[in-house]
Amino acid sequence: MSGAEVVATYRVDSYLPLEQAAEVIAGEQSTGTFVAVARETPELRDRFAARVVAIEPTTSTADLPDAALAGADLPDAALAGADLPEAALAGADLPEAAVAGADLPGAIRPAGARRRSGLVRIAFGLDNFGPSLPNLLAAVAGNLFELRQLAGIRLLDLSLPDAFAERYPGPQYGITGTRRLLDRPDGVLLGTIVKPSIGLPPEELRILVRELAEAGIDFIKDDELMGNPPHSPLADRVRVVTEELDKVAARTGRRPMYAFNITDDLDRMAANHDLVHAAGGTCVMACINLIGLAGLAWLRERCALPIHAHRAMTGVFTRAPQLGIDFVAWSKLARLAGADHLHTNGLSNKFYETDDEVLRSIAAVREPLLGGYETLPVLSSGQTPGLAPETYRRTATTDLLVLAGGGIHGHPDGPAAGVTAMRAAWQSTTSGRTLTETAQQNPALQQALETFGPPGADGGGGRG
Amino acid sequence: MSGAEVVATYRVDSYLPLEQAAEVIAGEQSTGTFVAVARETPELRDRFAARVVAIEPTTSTADLPDAALAGADLPDAALAGADLPEAALAGADLPEAAVAGADLPGAIRPAGARRRSGLVRIAFGLDNFGPSLPNLLAAVAGNLFELRQLAGIRLLDLSLPDAFAERYPGPQYGITGTRRLLDRPDGVLLGTIVKPSIGLPPEELRILVRELAEAGIDFIKDDELMGNPPHSPLADRVRVVTEELDKVAARTGRRPMYAFNITDDLDRMAANHDLVHAAGGTCVMACINLIGLAGLAWLRERCALPIHAHRAMTGVFTRAPQLGIDFVAWSKLARLAGADHLHTNGLSNKFYETDDEVLRSIAAVREPLLGGYETLPVLSSGQTPGLAPETYRRTATTDLLVLAGGGIHGHPDGPAAGVTAMRAAWQSTTSGRTLTETAQQNPALQQALETFGPPGADGGGGRG
Repeated sequence: MSGAEVVATYRVDSYLPLEQAAEVIAGEQSTGTFVAVARETPELRDRFAARVVAIEPTTSTADLPDAALAGADLPDAALAGADLPEAALAGADLPEAAVAGADLPGAIRPAGARRRSGLVRIAFGLDNFGPSLPNLLAAVAGNLFELRQLAGIRLLDLSLPDAFAERYPGPQYGITGTRRLLDRPDGVLLGTIVKPSIGLPPEELRILVRELAEAGIDFIKDDELMGNPPHSPLADRVRVVTEELDKVAARTGRRPMYAFNITDDLDRMAANHDLVHAAGGTCVMACINLIGLAGLAWLRERCALPIHAHRAMTGVFTRAPQLGIDFVAWSKLARLAGADHLHTNGLSNKFYETDDEVLRSIAAVREPLLGGYETLPVLSSGQTPGLAPETYRRTATTDLLVLAGGGIHGHPDGPAAGVTAMRAAWQSTTSGRTLTETAQQNPALQQALETFGPPGADGGGGRG
Repeated sequence: MSGAEVVATYRVDSYLPLEQAAEVIAGEQSTGTFVAVARETPELRDRFAARVVAIEPTTSTADLPDAALAGADLPDAALAGADLPEAALAGADLPEAAVAGADLPGAIRPAGARRRSGLVRIAFGLDNFGPSLPNLLAAVAGNLFELRQLAGIRLLDLSLPDAFAERYPGPQYGITGTRRLLDRPDGVLLGTIVKPSIGLPPEELRILVRELAEAGIDFIKDDELMGNPPHSPLADRVRVVTEELDKVAARTGRRPMYAFNITDDLDRMAANHDLVHAAGGTCVMACINLIGLAGLAWLRERCALPIHAHRAMTGVFTRAPQLGIDFVAWSKLARLAGADHLHTNGLSNKFYETDDEVLRSIAAVREPLLGGYETLPVLSSGQTPGLAPETYRRTATTDLLVLAGGGIHGHPDGPAAGVTAMRAAWQSTTSGRTLTETAQQNPALQQALETFGPPGADGGGGRG
């Protein structure tokens, strides 16, 4: 094999020697079939066969420090030999997810064989598929999940050659462009989700948006469940929302960004985008697993606005620890395909991920990809003002879009007070004051802390 | 809630009472958030909240007879009360996959709580999202996989209202149209995959196709790993293949169908389709998980040929027994979106699925959907002549496309002999003769049975 390569990193469990399991993956995903066939010459195999470049055994899945993989591009040096750099396996906390990996069904288990686990890196010649996301997936994430030789198989990370950067323009706005549109050059960006998720009539949405915008929110989004249903057509939402935002902008000089959920069958989605754009909207949201990464790349080609990428359904391929595609690998593909904003969950979220896993996702999204692909991490689910100090301490950045749904709408004094409390919490945190101090002068924050929990109560490491 | 509904059936594991777990799913996927919010009125909830319509506990995941779910539409009667019909839970074989379900990470486990497992059916008002596949997925397969209240969550089946039939035309050719294009009105359709999977130069492909076509094969397809790479551009493959098929058709009157893999970024995929169509090709193949179901529906809108739907990457959401989307549910969406042919695996395949699971998938594809959506099941992976009797006995149909890759290319006398052996095996089987009898007059079959195994050797129930 010569020329540019894609390197895929997998976590593999098998009752076969890891070397053998790795060769099965490489064979299935390139030149192999289950019997020798005519025309499969040594020259053909030399040129096109995927190549196992590294195997790093761990004694069991439970010993594998997930957090150590951290989403960084693999250094070239790591690919030269069979040894992974020691640093990648040192001293990370053990995430909950790594513990539970039962054998996948159908795994071949020779009598007396013991279970082996490890990291396997496989190089695929770019010439096998070219710089195409769907064709790349066929190789690195196609039939291999079904192999009986594997008792566990998870794609952790991908290292991609520059040819992908030539094909995919990626985020059109990213962090910089989003800040510019919002006229918010620094500080955390604060947002919310329209609640109730579905069923709110457009004229009530109008009132809610007015209230949130006047309270100084940066960003509002449709719930992922709200598409273009008969009871609240997108066209009606676009009309009332843009009217209200225009009015607020005229009064205050600030225009929050509203991410309209344009998710739908693709031609309809494109029409939805055009509707939002024509009305002066400044953001569209797409559920990128539901339209597919190819659908996202297609949207990017005809999109004039930032794409707020919702990750609904990610859990179906991330939550089983012994199977799937890790957020780190998936997020790279989403960024290539054009995600300007990408959901990562937030600390102490209501879903299954630990804080360590969330932080790993945020770090992955912030890591430069092929020298660019600037994407804004979106922290959401269970976010409240009390989480600001821990979030800031552990991410060390304000290049975040923090979305509070219930944490704003559930404020006892209503959504506007919810926005005030969130803003106060983050301003307090980034200027080095404690929330307790700030709350003494800020009743909205005081009440939020009483309602949703004080700093540290639920923010000091989450469920872990 | 009034009007048309979607009913989703889930297998749920939880340490909470199943009623509570079911309500969490219904809430998360419709009107709920983690705190009470303003404007979430009782009227709004009445109209838009998803509704738990049935809960059927099983004592543990291991007791759940997967095979009993069989992919049939739920009878209306089953939705009226909380009881599932007894027949749905009676006496099926226990599939391997049902046994291994470990808890998903992050599951809430109150002290002393025991694990509950069961089937849960939830009805969603169609008005929540309209007849749109991406928006439907947001509701029935969105964030719910990440819920901590669940230790296991798998979408098993979907019952869809007629509005989906109005929006999605589905298969354009199906079984009937494919048989017409092939001039093969009855009998099993026999096909193969080009091997080696990648790397074969176009001029060698030409020779291979000629040989297969002259031997009377019905169908040839590109490997899913073969897209439009520099070493064998699609345009070159289309040229040599259609030239050869034209020549064979002129000589023999029969023109095999060749499924060119057009999988790529969507605009390129559409251009690939146009290229195939303009050259007189009669089938296109798409890896439908890699372009997304929305990408498939989009292709269907602009496609003039049968769509051969490859299922690469399905394992990422099917193989973990405690998580995911079952083939039965997924195949309905694929058929709505336009799959004319759909891969199901075959008996004794080289992948993880048991024969029972494969048979369930074949049955699901053959079951009428909304009164139509005729899709041809495609049996592949490890298929050989010796499997014909068991496949026919257990499927009781010849409306199958059976693909043998290694089982044809690996024949000691070459691919043409491989085709002859496969054809003889199926003709023998459907006319009630044993393979042993037939092989006495058919050396190609005799040699295939000696090479790949005699009838029953590997075909009497697979790995189970």
